[in-house]
Amino acid sequence: MTAGPSRDGGDPAPYARVHVFCCVNERPAGHPRGCCKEKGSEHLRNYMKARAKALGLGDVRINNAGCLDRCELGPTMVIYPEGIWYRYRNNEDVDEILDSHVVGGRRVERLMLHPEDTEPVES
Amino acid sequence: MTAGPSRDGGDPAPYARVHVFCCVNERPAGHPRGCCKEKGSEHLRNYMKARAKALGLGDVRINNAGCLDRCELGPTMVIYPEGIWYRYRNNEDVDEILDSHVVGGRRVERLMLHPEDTEPVES
Repeated sequence: MTAGPSRDGGDPAPYARVHVFCCVNERPAGHPRGCCKEKGSEHLRNYMKARAKALGLGDVRINNAGCLDRCELGPTMVIYPEGIWYRYRNNEDVDEILDSHVVGGRRVERLMLHPEDTEPVES
Repeated sequence: MTAGPSRDGGDPAPYARVHVFCCVNERPAGHPRGCCKEKGSEHLRNYMKARAKALGLGDVRINNAGCLDRCELGPTMVIYPEGIWYRYRNNEDVDEILDSHVVGGRRVERLMLHPEDTEPVES
């Protein structure tokens, strides 16, 4: 294992307090892994971006990302610097992630992904 | 200011030890802000991904990202969880970021961006 990447005391201040990466990758129709785009990720990312703006969250960036390689679990996002992954399927999921996690600092346990997750757990 | 996003003791283990996001956004030709793609970011990201693989860095993900909104400074990347931004222009820059930062845990000062940077400093 190589050296860890934790922050140094001399590092610049963070450019964004919260940086969200929403996978919007598209694969060809019928690909066995599927893709986040076919599951509505583009709409959901745009909704999240608009909601963050409406909430006045100027220190939060809601970014598009290429394939995050957890296609089967999609749509997926990862929130840094804390490195928490979520599966989200509708606007209500986005609202809860924004209100609870991004603003409140509380995890949305029902949507969280764990490193060992490879297939969605239907709820 | 809202609650901070720092890691909880109960958070899952990180999915990737180092997660690099390389902006590959393309704007129309002649856009006043320019874009990372016109400055070669796609080639550089592909080179970085291939080099990370060749180095056996299985716990590192080199991701495409949409616009990181620091177009004038591009090509830009941000490395999480530590949230360090770099401007990189050629394969040698990529090699140095991989060898020094990603593997060695040492910042590449000459390529680092600071929050207040808005225009490139030519060196």
